[in-house]
Amino acid sequence: MAEAAPKQRSPAAPRPVRCIVKLGGAAITNKGELESIDEESLRSACAQLRQAMSDGTAPEKVRGMDWSRRPGDPADPVVDAEGFAGMAGLGLDSNFVVVHGAGSFGHFQASRSGVHKGGLHSTLVKAGFVATRISVTSLNQEIVRALAREGIPSVGMSPFACGWSTQRRNVLHGDAVLDESLDCTILSGDVIIRHLAQLLTPKYVVFLTDVHGVYDRPPTDPNAVLLKEIEVDDNGGWSIVKPALEGNRKGVEISVAAHDTTGGMETKILEAAVIARLGVDVYITKVDTEHSLRALKGDVNTSSDDWLGTVIRAAK
Amino acid sequence: MAEAAPKQRSPAAPRPVRCIVKLGGAAITNKGELESIDEESLRSACAQLRQAMSDGTAPEKVRGMDWSRRPGDPADPVVDAEGFAGMAGLGLDSNFVVVHGAGSFGHFQASRSGVHKGGLHSTLVKAGFVATRISVTSLNQEIVRALAREGIPSVGMSPFACGWSTQRRNVLHGDAVLDESLDCTILSGDVIIRHLAQLLTPKYVVFLTDVHGVYDRPPTDPNAVLLKEIEVDDNGGWSIVKPALEGNRKGVEISVAAHDTTGGMETKILEAAVIARLGVDVYITKVDTEHSLRALKGDVNTSSDDWLGTVIRAAK
Repeated sequence: MAEAAPKQRSPAAPRPVRCIVKLGGAAITNKGELESIDEESLRSACAQLRQAMSDGTAPEKVRGMDWSRRPGDPADPVVDAEGFAGMAGLGLDSNFVVVHGAGSFGHFQASRSGVHKGGLHSTLVKAGFVATRISVTSLNQEIVRALAREGIPSVGMSPFACGWSTQRRNVLHGDAVLDESLDCTILSGDVIIRHLAQLLTPKYVVFLTDVHGVYDRPPTDPNAVLLKEIEVDDNGGWSIVKPALEGNRKGVEISVAAHDTTGGMETKILEAAVIARLGVDVYITKVDTEHSLRALKGDVNTSSDDWLGTVIRAAK
Repeated sequence: MAEAAPKQRSPAAPRPVRCIVKLGGAAITNKGELESIDEESLRSACAQLRQAMSDGTAPEKVRGMDWSRRPGDPADPVVDAEGFAGMAGLGLDSNFVVVHGAGSFGHFQASRSGVHKGGLHSTLVKAGFVATRISVTSLNQEIVRALAREGIPSVGMSPFACGWSTQRRNVLHGDAVLDESLDCTILSGDVIIRHLAQLLTPKYVVFLTDVHGVYDRPPTDPNAVLLKEIEVDDNGGWSIVKPALEGNRKGVEISVAAHDTTGGMETKILEAAVIARLGVDVYITKVDTEHSLRALKGDVNTSSDDWLGTVIRAAK
């Protein structure tokens, strides 16, 4: 939802989107554990989003917008209605779109039933479609609540329910959706990002993940080198600008996690390359670090060496 | 989601909707307690829906479609993928639309912030809009899960997210939505029902609530009389056909609960009258009774006296 200055602009008038953020499934969930959120990473990502959105007038005291009970918490939520009523504005440029992955939500249900391969006439696929949507919408609900608790006005939108490609300024997620040829399939958050970037042309796009960026080989390899800058040409080919690598290491070795039904780093790079060709810089960086905060603020300078992450941009 | 016979009909081909069901907020939540579901009533409503949907071939053993963890339950969900894979079909005519009210969800957040009166430029209304949506979508998620646990293939659709008036065969709910003149407002489940009935022309519409139907005065009054049959004429006027009342009791005294931001029984009757004028019978009855099961099956005979509820239909 947009933050609009009172009496100066109608809240319904669309404004350019500043940033599309992907909260990677690996960044905000514990991938090894079924349906488990990494609460600390999620909280940090939301707090950094608030900092990045602040126009300098946002009050330090956060007034939360999640006025619902928490599971297992018998206490009623704190609602500071008087505090909100006394505010001239939130002081936030909240014209961000947040898209999140599924991580340890949804994948189990999807892979157990084969939803991504289609075939809704099968009772197993039909049941898996229902089960997958329950799982991913549960995660979406928790992410909207985490954003709201940081005082960021947010509304959840399911791709299945909303015809996602025409929506904006909201929190979207990977989902089980209907498909014209397959009946149904899985739509990944990275594909959503690419389509939204084409539609909305944000100033920049940020992928928050659980590693510092794209490496030349699996980042668990001790010799792995972080690729700090990748240029994409008009034909979709890419070249590594920084660091300068030896001739035989120019290629990017890509690791795809086996449990990820929508593709891992390979999908991310391919989608990022499409976005970069639009002239929109893409920053891939690690959640809950000073680097992620700078990326969310759009404050990335690849000529200095103190920022850790990968910039993917169009060749000049 | 429709249950389609394999290789005989495309799942994408729309079929007539058999029934639109309103799960009243008073029927499925504990109205006096913030965000509290009446688990037993909800479970009963879902089990009766399954019975009403059965085409006679549904297996007695229910295979659940909620494969997610329950809050506070450390055990992994039971997934009978082999059982599903071996089924020729679910044996359910699941072409129902379920709409639910908010009950003790959403009303607190909406009334505290005045979302129903609009004005998104106010930080309080904006925060209340976010908080209301979090609350009502939490309830929606729990209702979808309850239906899925009864083996009913269900997907949740938020009116806000989906452009609700064009959607079908899904689980919808009262919601905070954008409004062209007010910026934002509250859309009630009863208004959604009326529009869906106009769009889909179901065979019948069922309102499940916490009393046996419409009374001539508040049902807490020991002299209250259940109105068993109401006819609506072409001008929208209504008359009580059964029981025969004395002349000065023909009017219906309407009680509106003070906490209900979207109107109580009055809205329900007005919306039901609009539906009845389409030629669609409306049954208002009490959840978790033999009467609600008969209503869901469309098996209501007003000439016999053993069915407790109110039928609202067009005058012949």
